[in-house]
Amino acid sequence: MKILDLKIQSVSKAKEALLKEKLNQKAKPVKSLGKMEEIALRIGLIQDTLSPELIKPTMFTVASDHEVCQEGVSPCPTKMTWQQCLNFLELGGGIGLFSRMYGFDLKVVDAGVNFDFAPHPRLIQAKVRKGSRNMLHEPAMTMEECLQAIENGRQMIREVAKEGVNVVGFGEMGIGNTTPASALLSIYTNTDIKACVGPGSGLDSHGVNHKAWVIQEAMKKHGISENPLENLARFGGLEIATICGGMLEAAAQKMVVITDGFITTSALLAASEIEPNVLDYAFFSHQSDEQGHALMIDHMHGDPILNLSFRLGEGTGAAICYPIIKGSVTMLNEMTTFEEAQVFNTASAKVAAFSHD
Amino acid sequence: MKILDLKIQSVSKAKEALLKEKLNQKAKPVKSLGKMEEIALRIGLIQDTLSPELIKPTMFTVASDHEVCQEGVSPCPTKMTWQQCLNFLELGGGIGLFSRMYGFDLKVVDAGVNFDFAPHPRLIQAKVRKGSRNMLHEPAMTMEECLQAIENGRQMIREVAKEGVNVVGFGEMGIGNTTPASALLSIYTNTDIKACVGPGSGLDSHGVNHKAWVIQEAMKKHGISENPLENLARFGGLEIATICGGMLEAAAQKMVVITDGFITTSALLAASEIEPNVLDYAFFSHQSDEQGHALMIDHMHGDPILNLSFRLGEGTGAAICYPIIKGSVTMLNEMTTFEEAQVFNTASAKVAAFSHD
Repeated sequence: MKILDLKIQSVSKAKEALLKEKLNQKAKPVKSLGKMEEIALRIGLIQDTLSPELIKPTMFTVASDHEVCQEGVSPCPTKMTWQQCLNFLELGGGIGLFSRMYGFDLKVVDAGVNFDFAPHPRLIQAKVRKGSRNMLHEPAMTMEECLQAIENGRQMIREVAKEGVNVVGFGEMGIGNTTPASALLSIYTNTDIKACVGPGSGLDSHGVNHKAWVIQEAMKKHGISENPLENLARFGGLEIATICGGMLEAAAQKMVVITDGFITTSALLAASEIEPNVLDYAFFSHQSDEQGHALMIDHMHGDPILNLSFRLGEGTGAAICYPIIKGSVTMLNEMTTFEEAQVFNTASAKVAAFSHD
Repeated sequence: MKILDLKIQSVSKAKEALLKEKLNQKAKPVKSLGKMEEIALRIGLIQDTLSPELIKPTMFTVASDHEVCQEGVSPCPTKMTWQQCLNFLELGGGIGLFSRMYGFDLKVVDAGVNFDFAPHPRLIQAKVRKGSRNMLHEPAMTMEECLQAIENGRQMIREVAKEGVNVVGFGEMGIGNTTPASALLSIYTNTDIKACVGPGSGLDSHGVNHKAWVIQEAMKKHGISENPLENLARFGGLEIATICGGMLEAAAQKMVVITDGFITTSALLAASEIEPNVLDYAFFSHQSDEQGHALMIDHMHGDPILNLSFRLGEGTGAAICYPIIKGSVTMLNEMTTFEEAQVFNTASAKVAAFSHD
């Protein structure tokens, strides 16, 4: 998109046949490692090599507050946003623990939290405003704020790219942020809002209906644009726009991009509306239990790696799927071939097409 | 079962409430880590502690040949069984690589391979016979052979129990072994054989029909017994019986038992027919693409952790799910609580019931 001065190339298929041949020479029946072979193939294509590498996996947990919480769209107190950020900075909470366990360098990004954080080695200061605006009364962001958040996301990726990072996960923290995510799902996929809102884990059916009503009123008030950026500004959130920018830049830099749950996937949805080629670089880590996540993933023809009934966010799903992504690449690089193993080495390669049965 | 002199206790639910309380105090919405919380809870119950530990994870890849291959039930040459075992012993192939990657001590078990292996540190000699018999003409095992294979499986578990191992995965290698696995599925679950056989990755529809025919003829010839051990002997295989024994002993020793694909799950099915309490200790690592695997898992009310469209066996699925199992236990032990993190610590614990939304 010209306004962003961004160009994402679709992945080259030049090495597809060679990559498939390499996978088929492994000492196993053809395609018997299922999704892991698909992951390995895609990463080989992204890096345009038969021997891809995953370097310095980095997790961006991007946080913002949402003034729409004034309308009672979340049962949680908004101060949980900053409190959890402090927790994550010390590697506490779900994403702090999972980053340690599964090998991510965790960055906590303040995209719009209503709190003044002291500097911290893991904190990225990218605050546009202390909270996205209340969409019931005004657009969630001005276009200027939205573009600034996108640029901030791009900048955080440019910084880690300098260090050689080529695989990034995205998570979020923001009380109230299923409201913008549901709105974006409804708008970008032209789906009735009632199918896009869910209970989270706190709202009862009255609360869910009220959340849908707030979004519908906001849609009536601001209207729906033909321009995906306009819609992101009107109905999104600062963390969603920042993540969207991060994903776009990461794809432009040919990184492996790992989504998490409902919120980060809404950021990918926005990114794909802006620049569809971003999907060539995206891996859907898991399908969460939040209503609407499956709709989002289906709309982008995604194939989630896991379904563990998560509904936490933060990047936890992106982190837990990493051993599978890492294993896929290691399999491509290191698994012995039939020939190396001298398995049935006197016969035709056709045996590779057979199962162990 | 008396003939085996085996007693598997169902897990005590004594600490269930305390374990749930511990999980609910973590800095996250209640149940928002979905299956990982269920896994953590189950392992806490198995070990009857609020702070379970996983010690020295060990993978048993159990191999055997099958004389029923003489009937053309597999397109693969039978010598692949021993060739792949040699490959695994050097940590080659899928399970060699995955054991390294995901932290398993790999043991390759010769339960009935038609080959004379030289001693090797990773090899367990447990050969009953050079191949299960051809079920089209005679029972796959005599009852004596079957009981010996079960005892061998139990003995291999007793050995590692001495070293403190408390989590075991099971895999297999055996050209032709979907034939006995399909037969056991059909018999134990009273399901038409046609729903129990699949193409593996090598057989065309003619081959699949022929495999079903071979099993049906074998059933007619030997009959179906009321005694699950008799059925295992008539229609099973030496690796399946050895794994079955291993699973029974592991459950008796209160270990965490991780299944792999169609073959090892058929061993668990046999074990559960012999002693239903074994299921209290079993974790279904994944659902494979082999037709019939889903039927087996459903019959045992299992909830597979992964679905990566694997159809390799060897223990690869058991290995790849281990980071999730390990992560579940680490989460229970190490994840910060709301209180530790001072998140919303002035309010009631009720906030824990809410999502980030």
